[in-house]
Amino acid sequence: MWISGIHPVREVLESRGAFVYELMVAREDLRVREVAALAESRGIPLHRVDKHNLDEIVGHSHHQGIALQTEEYPYLSLETLLKPAQETPGFLLILDSIQDPQNLGALLRSAAFLGVGGVILPKNRSVRVTGAVIKVAAGAAACVPIARVTNLVRALVLLKEAGYWIVGLDAAGEETLYDIDLTVPVGLVVGNEEKGIRPLVRHHCDLCARIPGSGRLDSLNAAAAGAVAMAEVQRQRRSRRS
Amino acid sequence: MWISGIHPVREVLESRGAFVYELMVAREDLRVREVAALAESRGIPLHRVDKHNLDEIVGHSHHQGIALQTEEYPYLSLETLLKPAQETPGFLLILDSIQDPQNLGALLRSAAFLGVGGVILPKNRSVRVTGAVIKVAAGAAACVPIARVTNLVRALVLLKEAGYWIVGLDAAGEETLYDIDLTVPVGLVVGNEEKGIRPLVRHHCDLCARIPGSGRLDSLNAAAAGAVAMAEVQRQRRSRRS
Repeated sequence: MWISGIHPVREVLESRGAFVYELMVAREDLRVREVAALAESRGIPLHRVDKHNLDEIVGHSHHQGIALQTEEYPYLSLETLLKPAQETPGFLLILDSIQDPQNLGALLRSAAFLGVGGVILPKNRSVRVTGAVIKVAAGAAACVPIARVTNLVRALVLLKEAGYWIVGLDAAGEETLYDIDLTVPVGLVVGNEEKGIRPLVRHHCDLCARIPGSGRLDSLNAAAAGAVAMAEVQRQRRSRRS
Repeated sequence: MWISGIHPVREVLESRGAFVYELMVAREDLRVREVAALAESRGIPLHRVDKHNLDEIVGHSHHQGIALQTEEYPYLSLETLLKPAQETPGFLLILDSIQDPQNLGALLRSAAFLGVGGVILPKNRSVRVTGAVIKVAAGAAACVPIARVTNLVRALVLLKEAGYWIVGLDAAGEETLYDIDLTVPVGLVVGNEEKGIRPLVRHHCDLCARIPGSGRLDSLNAAAAGAVAMAEVQRQRRSRRS
């Protein structure tokens, strides 16, 4: 897959999180030269192309003159995500079986904007972080750490041990999101677009909460529901601080 | 335009809001027969086709075996939208220059779920309610009234005369959404995906408010920002009532 843009490319090179095939450069300036030097020091082949070539290679024109071909998106481990408590209190987004790249991209963008410390995806039954997802995320994939786990239930158990309160977002939840305390460390679970959270995953939530609706429609779109819930966590924390 | 799916097709037939050219049916079951009978009672020509034909006609395969060709989406007038104060206090969503059908569909779905009384679109510089929009809206286009206006600024003036407080959603807004009173009658303005609210429209807002971010990204996606703002209106009103 192609990762483009100065910041995302530098992140991949610095984290060494994915095998890199090659670097394409279509511009000459200080920031591009710095990243190119970093790639050279890692022994990564560098090719110079013109802007239109790079447009065609990566499929869009928002590449800032630099792009990297990697084997896969450089996911972090769950342990890395849990280690630095950058957000105080912790705030993680757990996506159970999101299928639509558009939704995953939108959720990553909302997570980055609304101060989520990290996102957890299952290896199976979930769309991966593809080039299409990164494009929709509009830069967010580079500024919110993403972990992929084999067993989502085991990840929830580890989160609970680390002091997180696991809140599942569910249209049939017993309480509304507005009636629960989200100022504690929170792991927010958003489920599949059609089927919601899987039963076994739901069983490991401390609580299932709903966004109250007007009754005219059954549910929000997964990306909209996730954005509303993340904003509510942020709102409660701001209100607590002031 | 083609409206497909049992629920959307039935809504158009029942509301009589648009001139219908013909009904295509590619399946036989009780629900399809009921809708076909309704169309017949209105004197609408019915054609039986096979599934693959219908896929080609409507351009996708998620039609549930039924589709309707109408002259255009049945928009309401602004006056109709302002007349019945079904929502107390009033709550209208004004979309200034939304370009992406995916975003318009998502915004309509959020509006219907979160209790918006009506949506206002400008005739120019905005995506229309197309078949693609209706599909993304997942039934919402049938349960939230939509008006199209020639002059959005004039519509805002009429809304103000009707007692609405016009709140523009703007990443550079002076106050946060959480610090303003949204329990009064509100007209919420969401702007274009790239450029935000147009200057002349912004000039007619009583206030511009922002969703506070973590600082890592400049803005939310327009559909996510709209969902967060609509949910905040609903949250404040629920909290006021209880």
